[in-house]
Amino acid sequence: MTGGLMAAEMADQPQVLARLVDRAPADAAAVRAVVPRPLAGTVFLARGSSDNAAVFGRYLAELCAGRPAGLAAPSLYTRYHARVDWHGYLMVALSQSGATPEIISTCEAARGAGATVIGITNEPRSALAGAVDLLLSTEAGAERAVPATKTVTAQFAVLVTVAAALGTGPATAGALAGLPGAVGATLGDPRPTRELADRWCAIDRLVVAGRGLGYAAALETALKVAETTGILAEGMSAADLYHGPIAAVYAGAPVLLVSGGGPGDADLAALRHLLDGRNAETASLPARTVAAEPAQVIMAVVRGQQLAHALALARGSDPDAPAHLTKVTETT
Amino acid sequence: MTGGLMAAEMADQPQVLARLVDRAPADAAAVRAVVPRPLAGTVFLARGSSDNAAVFGRYLAELCAGRPAGLAAPSLYTRYHARVDWHGYLMVALSQSGATPEIISTCEAARGAGATVIGITNEPRSALAGAVDLLLSTEAGAERAVPATKTVTAQFAVLVTVAAALGTGPATAGALAGLPGAVGATLGDPRPTRELADRWCAIDRLVVAGRGLGYAAALETALKVAETTGILAEGMSAADLYHGPIAAVYAGAPVLLVSGGGPGDADLAALRHLLDGRNAETASLPARTVAAEPAQVIMAVVRGQQLAHALALARGSDPDAPAHLTKVTETT
Repeated sequence: MTGGLMAAEMADQPQVLARLVDRAPADAAAVRAVVPRPLAGTVFLARGSSDNAAVFGRYLAELCAGRPAGLAAPSLYTRYHARVDWHGYLMVALSQSGATPEIISTCEAARGAGATVIGITNEPRSALAGAVDLLLSTEAGAERAVPATKTVTAQFAVLVTVAAALGTGPATAGALAGLPGAVGATLGDPRPTRELADRWCAIDRLVVAGRGLGYAAALETALKVAETTGILAEGMSAADLYHGPIAAVYAGAPVLLVSGGGPGDADLAALRHLLDGRNAETASLPARTVAAEPAQVIMAVVRGQQLAHALALARGSDPDAPAHLTKVTETT
Repeated sequence: MTGGLMAAEMADQPQVLARLVDRAPADAAAVRAVVPRPLAGTVFLARGSSDNAAVFGRYLAELCAGRPAGLAAPSLYTRYHARVDWHGYLMVALSQSGATPEIISTCEAARGAGATVIGITNEPRSALAGAVDLLLSTEAGAERAVPATKTVTAQFAVLVTVAAALGTGPATAGALAGLPGAVGATLGDPRPTRELADRWCAIDRLVVAGRGLGYAAALETALKVAETTGILAEGMSAADLYHGPIAAVYAGAPVLLVSGGGPGDADLAALRHLLDGRNAETASLPARTVAAEPAQVIMAVVRGQQLAHALALARGSDPDAPAHLTKVTETT
């Protein structure tokens, strides 16, 4: 049966998340012990399938730490050999393999210039361990399907813990409570995604819209659909889609609205109203309500995985190993 | 004749840029007078067609100021009402109209929390003027074609001056010397873009690859092509295209390689070698050599405008007012 690997790895998520929930107090304490004070800012470093987790972390960290956050531009270090003073900064590096040379070099450059670096990886014995001040493992087990699933939600979950350790905001010590069970229930209820996959099995492009913390879930859903199906799926900010001239390029493409369960949802409602008025093809996927917005975003990521898996099967593709896709980790 | 407005506005660029080159010493002095010292970081704020200039500024500022730089997430201020300490930060807000409510609110929030804010706009009497510590006008004159051209290159040029005022790096006081004349010569030589437009007149998707400072030119070229033609054009980092699983989604799409004339070009050469080995359809556009890398990037932006204009005409569209596109500025 095709798609079995991806499905099995998706099914591991409640257990993986439960382990991270148990570990959260210790992880938070370890983060608090290394965070520079006063904090100048937080920068997230990632590449490829960890990029969307970095966006999630960037939003959460700015809200929780109360200092600006951003995303690193690795080429400044690997190609320009930039001389930048990183004192006062926390860098959070995300790499499933922990072996991406570009990530390691950038960590080393920033750390050598004063940054405190936390690494988040699924391979705690990788080279990343030697380039950081604190390593947090996602402990998700081996991932063999090409589309990353359990390692991604594990990264999101660890980022909630890191952000909660930085201060106060939507990420709190208890933000992940109830998430493992709710993810399990969602995985046991794939019907809404199968129905949408049947409806959309012939599409060739897709817009996935989100806003606020939910924007990261929209980006991740678009990536997952693109990887498993080859559909040109684009994650967009609901604000850009509502107002930007680029929106018209996608006129006629179906739009999936991804709710993060937070204040960004007001823009999604306005966008849906606008699109319905134009008879655009829109959809959203139901999600169980969990206690905190960051956990709700992780629920949306899981729904996106289910949709990607179901769309691939509905189109006769193998979501485990889509044509031409290979698992890649090296960037120098 | 269709496309006349866009062509006329493109033709204004040497004059617009010459004005900004003349003004650069005074602008740089004004920037130096307001920049917070010590500088904690620089954050660029933009939406829609100013987004790519913000990416250019973000790379340049980190290289020149020697402190981390990033891009703002406006929804944190307009939707989450985030309480963030911005002391020590320089925010650079880009808005052609100077009237985008989301940009104004975010400037006000950051400035009220300690940031020094520089605004860059084509409308110096707009609301943005009241929300910043220093306003720099792009003085590009009215722009009426839907695809923004002269206001974009003017933003890029002002950003070179701002970055040069922050320290040392690829942007220097003389970085723009020779640019107005070189842009004029490029505009007088549209043949390479017309030939490529003829070759690519029937494509429905396009990847535009760049790296380092040239990444911003790749993003801007993709946006311009998408806006004028409806082609699904995606700007990508050459590193993502070389290594990322997402690349396979675009397998078969033609790839335009955009050189920034700097250290990022090593990755473009490697990518071209890879793509040629797969018999992929690739192209690059010739550019006159100018003195400094940031000016070379602006030359690449102009070539991208020419390609977008020529592609629209080759496809029988009106680049001035592509179907369904309207000039939009408001995001609350």
